[in-house]
Amino acid sequence: MNSFLTKQRAVLKVYLLNEIERSKSYGWRYTETIAARNANYHPTHSEIYKALHELTADGLISRHKQRVAERGSGLQEVVLYSFTEDGYHRAQVYKLRVKSDLERSKRLIDSIIADNY
Amino acid sequence: MNSFLTKQRAVLKVYLLNEIERSKSYGWRYTETIAARNANYHPTHSEIYKALHELTADGLISRHKQRVAERGSGLQEVVLYSFTEDGYHRAQVYKLRVKSDLERSKRLIDSIIADNY
Repeated sequence: MNSFLTKQRAVLKVYLLNEIERSKSYGWRYTETIAARNANYHPTHSEIYKALHELTADGLISRHKQRVAERGSGLQEVVLYSFTEDGYHRAQVYKLRVKSDLERSKRLIDSIIADNY
Repeated sequence: MNSFLTKQRAVLKVYLLNEIERSKSYGWRYTETIAARNANYHPTHSEIYKALHELTADGLISRHKQRVAERGSGLQEVVLYSFTEDGYHRAQVYKLRVKSDLERSKRLIDSIIADNY
């Protein structure tokens, strides 16, 4: 991963992969659920979209359209994301890599504080 | 500061300000001392230079040239950085802000891990 602290992009990918695991698919219109999970962290829609786009480009998830019933306005077409055939397995590997990078970042912050304060 | 994890630039500025405090001045040619302080963190010369440049542009430190005796080659002109008149005080304020941002980052990493693993 990168050599300084964990990148926001990687963290957002982990939130998205977990969201897809939880509900088998993820709708771009539900980006609020990501933002609502953590009281101290409010990624923008554009940042979430870039993470979704990279996961799609890397072949972990794929986009497909689905018609869903919409209260008051009948059927609406929405874009959903779900795992590709090997996506779920690759997601587990990716999530572990990011976890270990987050732990490395915590240790790095501790050593930066010890060096300077 | 920023809304995700602490930026490398801010951390490098803190290392540099402490280096200047320690030795009253900082020579660009001694960038190795920054890199050597932390075994797990090896900023590039270009990253260190950008941090030095920003501290200068923000008026915390200033550049000046000095002739120093160089073993074997007589006097050499080197560029040194030292605090401006209010630079030392502003450095203390800046260092505390970065410390609190590093602590916020640690808490954010903990909550990201709790949310996802």
